[in-house]
Amino acid sequence: MDMLEDAHRTGSYFDAITHNPASFRDKVVLDVGAGTCILSIFAAKAGAKQVYAVEATDMALRSRKIVEAQGLSHIIKVVQGTIETVALPCMVDVIISEWMGYFLLRESMLDSVLNARDRFLKPGGALFPSHATLFLAPVGPYKACREKQQTFDSERTHFEDFNGSMLQWYGTDFSCMRDEFLAEQRMYYLQTGMFVNLSPKQLAGSASPVLEIDLRKITIEELQAAKPLTCTMRVTKDGPLDGFVGYFDVAFRGSPENPVKEEVVLTTAPTTSTHTHWGQQPEAYTHVPACLHIDWRIEEV
Amino acid sequence: MDMLEDAHRTGSYFDAITHNPASFRDKVVLDVGAGTCILSIFAAKAGAKQVYAVEATDMALRSRKIVEAQGLSHIIKVVQGTIETVALPCMVDVIISEWMGYFLLRESMLDSVLNARDRFLKPGGALFPSHATLFLAPVGPYKACREKQQTFDSERTHFEDFNGSMLQWYGTDFSCMRDEFLAEQRMYYLQTGMFVNLSPKQLAGSASPVLEIDLRKITIEELQAAKPLTCTMRVTKDGPLDGFVGYFDVAFRGSPENPVKEEVVLTTAPTTSTHTHWGQQPEAYTHVPACLHIDWRIEEV
Repeated sequence: MDMLEDAHRTGSYFDAITHNPASFRDKVVLDVGAGTCILSIFAAKAGAKQVYAVEATDMALRSRKIVEAQGLSHIIKVVQGTIETVALPCMVDVIISEWMGYFLLRESMLDSVLNARDRFLKPGGALFPSHATLFLAPVGPYKACREKQQTFDSERTHFEDFNGSMLQWYGTDFSCMRDEFLAEQRMYYLQTGMFVNLSPKQLAGSASPVLEIDLRKITIEELQAAKPLTCTMRVTKDGPLDGFVGYFDVAFRGSPENPVKEEVVLTTAPTTSTHTHWGQQPEAYTHVPACLHIDWRIEEV
Repeated sequence: MDMLEDAHRTGSYFDAITHNPASFRDKVVLDVGAGTCILSIFAAKAGAKQVYAVEATDMALRSRKIVEAQGLSHIIKVVQGTIETVALPCMVDVIISEWMGYFLLRESMLDSVLNARDRFLKPGGALFPSHATLFLAPVGPYKACREKQQTFDSERTHFEDFNGSMLQWYGTDFSCMRDEFLAEQRMYYLQTGMFVNLSPKQLAGSASPVLEIDLRKITIEELQAAKPLTCTMRVTKDGPLDGFVGYFDVAFRGSPENPVKEEVVLTTAPTTSTHTHWGQQPEAYTHVPACLHIDWRIEEV
């Protein structure tokens, strides 16, 4: 329910689909990773003549009930299987999918969407969303980045206390485990993704796009190439710079051949209103960021 | 480190082994599920001539280092593998193991210990611990039992709010999921094990043994038979009876042929001092307890 209740998420898809009925009327639609089929239901209500809702998990059994309860079983066909292995009876006009992971690509389903595009989308067909942008923004002063270091430091102290107790109580010396223990804690506390909901005033400057994806064009090979990404950020606030934060937007533009009438953007940027369930992902400035192999290069401008 | 730092746990094993050197001097010892090898180290220091430390996970690689750091590699041989499949060069005089799970048997390693006993323990050999008892005690008034019901009730309300929002915002009706959702929440909040650390004054009466295990005699078949267990508890406190709490003791008595000189008992009973990492497991009176298929029978006495 959490994801359905994320009003930015569900509401943006609702707007993008139902405010652009011309993009859906009498179209054949494919929903990749359909889950509860909520997007399929939006598409059917927007006038799609046929929707294939592909869902790999047993959620498919539930979503069939949900589709039936809406009286839409004659339009939406729930297909249980992975998109990579299912067969569809025809090509489709539109692919809809909510595939985005934390930090846009972390554990995302984008590969499956591109696979579906290459196998099932008619020439000139549209992807909803059609574009995605990953942003980075400078953060600081920001407690959470510092707390990661502090937690790591307290684990270091904890180990020494532990080792001292084991020696004193049981005459057993665990100091040979110190390096391994600290490496594990470092990985866990300093190099693992974190989830936060920032407000705009916690940023130390403006965000910059670090990766822009046109879903019609990008290939799985390009995604996997892991080229170094660069961007320039302007720090506009005095004080310490404690790290960087990543978040994404996706845009619903249709295709060049069939552009939408009303463009909708779903943003997961820091906000003063309701947060999305994606939040933002901070990386402390003092540590090697583990995700996406981004090289930080800081230059004064 | 958490388990090693559990002073009731590690300290009881330390006392049971090192206060009874006669049970270990010049003996061949098997440590089942050795982990860090702490028990093997205690046995070696108590005078064992050979210890086989069997550990299935890659922890075996670390524990070899730990054994080496104590200068005990000539006594303790770390064997990586499951006890069910390893071969040992000889039978053993003593089996040591910390196999106890929550509620004694939940996810415990007792099966492996009995397997080791049947394959490797010499006639007259000893198990450390040698006996285990599972207790039940009445609890009340006890907030945590009531909070489980309240959390479930609030999930019920949450579903109705969710369904109302989905109808209002997106014209989609999820009421067909109500029964399935509530069944899932009921399982999760009311029928799943819980972990608490009680103090003695939170009990409503005295604890009674509901299952007593002599590790030398019990068979895996008897353990798996899941016979109904009964016990009688005396409620000694006025006020509401909110549930029952389960915890266990294990005792280190050696074997009838080679009894220990100083018997040690490791108890996980409610205490006013430091808690064990096992805590106690409460079951609310109003719900069907899911563990061990215990039938509650309440009689006035």
